[in-house]
Amino acid sequence: MRMSRYFLPVLKETPREAQIVSHRLMLQAGLIKQASAGIYSWLPMGYKILKRIEQIVHEEQAKAGHLAMLMPTIQSADLWRESGRYDAYGDEMLRIKDRGGRDMLFTPTAEELVTDIFRSHVSSYKDLPLTLYQIQWKFRDETRPRFGVMRGREFLMKDGYNFDLTKEDALHAYNRHLVSYLRTYERMGLQAIPMRADSGPIGGDDTHEFLVLAETGESEVFYDSEITDLTFGDRQIDFDDKAACAAVLDEFTSRYARTDETHDEALFAQVPEERRRTARGIEVGQIFYFGTKYSDAMGATVQGPDGKPVAVHMGSHGIGVSRLLGAIIEASHDDKGIIWPEGVTPFHAGIVNLRQGDEATDAACEDLYDSLRAAGLDPLYDDRDERAGAKFGTMDLIGLPWRITVGPRGLKSGVVELTSRRTGESEELSPGDAVAKLIAIYANV
Amino acid sequence: MRMSRYFLPVLKETPREAQIVSHRLMLQAGLIKQASAGIYSWLPMGYKILKRIEQIVHEEQAKAGHLAMLMPTIQSADLWRESGRYDAYGDEMLRIKDRGGRDMLFTPTAEELVTDIFRSHVSSYKDLPLTLYQIQWKFRDETRPRFGVMRGREFLMKDGYNFDLTKEDALHAYNRHLVSYLRTYERMGLQAIPMRADSGPIGGDDTHEFLVLAETGESEVFYDSEITDLTFGDRQIDFDDKAACAAVLDEFTSRYARTDETHDEALFAQVPEERRRTARGIEVGQIFYFGTKYSDAMGATVQGPDGKPVAVHMGSHGIGVSRLLGAIIEASHDDKGIIWPEGVTPFHAGIVNLRQGDEATDAACEDLYDSLRAAGLDPLYDDRDERAGAKFGTMDLIGLPWRITVGPRGLKSGVVELTSRRTGESEELSPGDAVAKLIAIYANV
Repeated sequence: MRMSRYFLPVLKETPREAQIVSHRLMLQAGLIKQASAGIYSWLPMGYKILKRIEQIVHEEQAKAGHLAMLMPTIQSADLWRESGRYDAYGDEMLRIKDRGGRDMLFTPTAEELVTDIFRSHVSSYKDLPLTLYQIQWKFRDETRPRFGVMRGREFLMKDGYNFDLTKEDALHAYNRHLVSYLRTYERMGLQAIPMRADSGPIGGDDTHEFLVLAETGESEVFYDSEITDLTFGDRQIDFDDKAACAAVLDEFTSRYARTDETHDEALFAQVPEERRRTARGIEVGQIFYFGTKYSDAMGATVQGPDGKPVAVHMGSHGIGVSRLLGAIIEASHDDKGIIWPEGVTPFHAGIVNLRQGDEATDAACEDLYDSLRAAGLDPLYDDRDERAGAKFGTMDLIGLPWRITVGPRGLKSGVVELTSRRTGESEELSPGDAVAKLIAIYANV
Repeated sequence: MRMSRYFLPVLKETPREAQIVSHRLMLQAGLIKQASAGIYSWLPMGYKILKRIEQIVHEEQAKAGHLAMLMPTIQSADLWRESGRYDAYGDEMLRIKDRGGRDMLFTPTAEELVTDIFRSHVSSYKDLPLTLYQIQWKFRDETRPRFGVMRGREFLMKDGYNFDLTKEDALHAYNRHLVSYLRTYERMGLQAIPMRADSGPIGGDDTHEFLVLAETGESEVFYDSEITDLTFGDRQIDFDDKAACAAVLDEFTSRYARTDETHDEALFAQVPEERRRTARGIEVGQIFYFGTKYSDAMGATVQGPDGKPVAVHMGSHGIGVSRLLGAIIEASHDDKGIIWPEGVTPFHAGIVNLRQGDEATDAACEDLYDSLRAAGLDPLYDDRDERAGAKFGTMDLIGLPWRITVGPRGLKSGVVELTSRRTGESEELSPGDAVAKLIAIYANV
C-alpha cells in the first residue's frame, strides 16, 4: 500500500478520553474511531489487524478440528427463556422489540442457539465429537464502557461449543481448546497464562481464563513465577491424542495461577516465597466445561451406543478477538508508539523515502515495494512529500516491526537501512539483502 | 475435509417453509438453519461459501483501490437525525433503546456514519479521492421475510462509499464500481446486468441495479437481448483510467435494460422487436451517485485547491453478499440439487469411495485426498460407510462442481472416474491425471 492512497488518519494531539495506553495509541494511530460510547468503527489499518487476528484464530481452530460457522447477532428471546437465562442475564443484555412486538436480543453469547442447532440435527452418538465455533460480533450493554476496545459494548468474539458423549470426551475437548489457545496467543506474540477462574453466568465448575500480564489489566492475579518460563513453542501435537493434550493442560496449570476471583491465600502460601508474584492481567480468553447444564434444560440428547438417550456434555470456549488488539498493544509498546509482533502486524515493513521526488530514491523505493510484494509480503510505502522526521514519527507510532529507510547518501554506497522497531537497531544492507532478510523473518511467522 | 468429521446436516424431507428453489436447497443441503423469522444461522458449509463470496468481493475491491474497514452494527440515532433519515426510514429500521435510554438502531446502511468519519478526519482535497467500504451485517425489519436469505431480516452486505472533490471524479468512482462489480459477479459464475433503477431511500439521480435473470426474481425486467451477449471476461483495466472505465459503463448500459420501477414503454418500443425481452430478475447489487446530499446535510467539506471549503461529492455502492448464495443457486441448479460455479464452491471436488473399508479403495482415496490438498485444493472426502447411491445423492445435492469416484473395479484397471456436476459427463483417468486436471481447472478460477 502507498501511504498517499491510504486512509491513515494519525492524530497529532493526545486524545483526552483515553485512560490507558492502548486506547490512546489506537486512536492516535488511526486504527479506530468511537461511533458511540463503547462502540467503535475500525478504520482500514485497525480492520487489517483485526482480520489478521481472526485469521490466526481460524487457522488454529481448523488445526484442532473445530468447524467454523456463524450465528446471527439478533436472536429471539424464546430460546433464552428455555434455558432460563433471559431473566437471569441482567441489564447487560441488549433487549429489542421487533416491529411485530416480539422480544429479541443482541446476542452476548450463543449457548442456546448452538444447542438448538445441535438438537435439531444431531441424533446419534456416532456424529460426536463435534465442536462448532464462530467469530461474531457480540453486544454487552456495559454501564461504564471504557478503555477503548478493551471494555467496549459491541465487540468481536470467537465462541466455540463442544458436544461430547461423555464427561471424559468433553474434558478432552476442554484440553484441546487449552492447547489450541496457547498456540493462538503465542502466534500473536502474547504470553497468555491459563488461570483458574470463576464461571459467572455461563455456569459450570471447570474453567480457566487466559491472562496477559499488563499493568493496566482489570484483574489482580497471583502466580508462581515458574509459569512465565513455559512456552508452547513449535511442538507438534496430535489433537486427537487425549493423553498428549492432557499433559499440556497439566504442564500449564499445575503451578499456582489464579485471578482475584478464585485466589486462595493458604494455597498461594505454599509457593516458595521467591516465586510468589502479584500482578495485573488482561483477560483474553476463557474455556468452560459445564456438563449437561444446557443439554438438560433444552433437551439436547443423542442416542447412545445402547440405544438410550444421553444428554450431551458441553463446554464453551471464547477468545476476545477485538479486545486482543488492545491487549497486544498494552503488552507491546514504548513511548513512541505501538510495536506490533510480526504475527499480527498490518504491514510487514514500512518503506521510508527520505527524499520524495528524487529520481534515485523514488526508483529504489519502487523497486523495494515491488520486490517485497512479489515475495508475497505486504509493505507500506510512505511516499508522501513530508520531512523525514514526520515519516519516522508515523512509522514509530503505527509500529510496523521493520522499516527500510532509503536516502540519497546510502544509495550512493548501494545500501538502505533496515531498522527493527523493537530494538531500534539498524543495519545497512543492499536493497536485495534487505528484502531477503525480511523474507526470512516472515517465513518463520 | 472428511465427511465423517464434518457437520453437514443434509435433510431427507423437503422443507415445507421453502417457497423457492434456492431456499429449499440451502435448507436441504445443510447450508443454513432458520433461527427466527428472516434470521439464519450459517452452518459450516454455508459459512464457507459465504466467506468465499466475501473473499472475491474483497479481492476485487482491493484491485479497484477501495479500502476495507468496518463500522459497528449498533449506531446512535443522533447521526441519523442529522441527515434527516431517522424519521424518514420507516418501520424497517430496527430501533433500540440501550440501558441508558438512548436511541440506538441496527444499521440498515451506513452513509451517516461513514460521512461522520470522513468529516472528522479529512480536511483537504489532497486526501481525495477516497473510497471506503465494509462487509458487515445489516438489519431490515421486513414485515414478511421470506425466500430464505433472499429476503431476510439480518443480512450481509458490502457497502462502499466514495468521496470526491468534483462530480466528474465521483462519476468516475461510479464507473469504477460498475467495472469492479461486473468482474466480481463474473468470478462467481453470474451474469449480472446493470439496469437503470430507482434510488429509493438512499437518494440521488444516477443509479444502476445489477440483476441476475431468474424465474423467481422479485423484479420484472425489460431489456434488449443484445445485453446478454456482453461479458467482461479477463480484460485488464486500469482503474485510474477514467476514459477506460467510462467506456465499460457505455458498453454495458447503452442498450435498453430497466426494472419495472423505471421501465419506459415508449423507449422500449424502439428496441427491435425480436430483441425485446421481458423476464424476472434478482437484484444482487446497486450503485448510486447522490452528489452532496449527505455532505451538505452533515457538513462534510474539504479545503479545495483555492482554499475554499467544498462539499464532497459522494456515492454509495452495495453488493448483497448473503443474498448472493440464493441468487447463484437460483441461476445454477437442476432437479438433483445445487451446481456451484468453480469460483464459489465450498470444496473443489468431492471424493466418493464406493467401497469404504476396502484396503485398495481406501488407500486410493487417501492418496487422492492428500495429493489434492498438497496442490492447494480443498476436497471433501465422503468416507462414510454408506451405499454408493446415498453418497452420489449427497454430492449431487450439495453441488460440488467435480466428483472423483473410486471403486474396486476401476482401480484394477488403474483408473478413477472424474465427473462434472454440470454436464454429468464422466471420464476415466489415472488418479494422477484426475488430480492434474483439477489443478488445471482451478488455476483459471
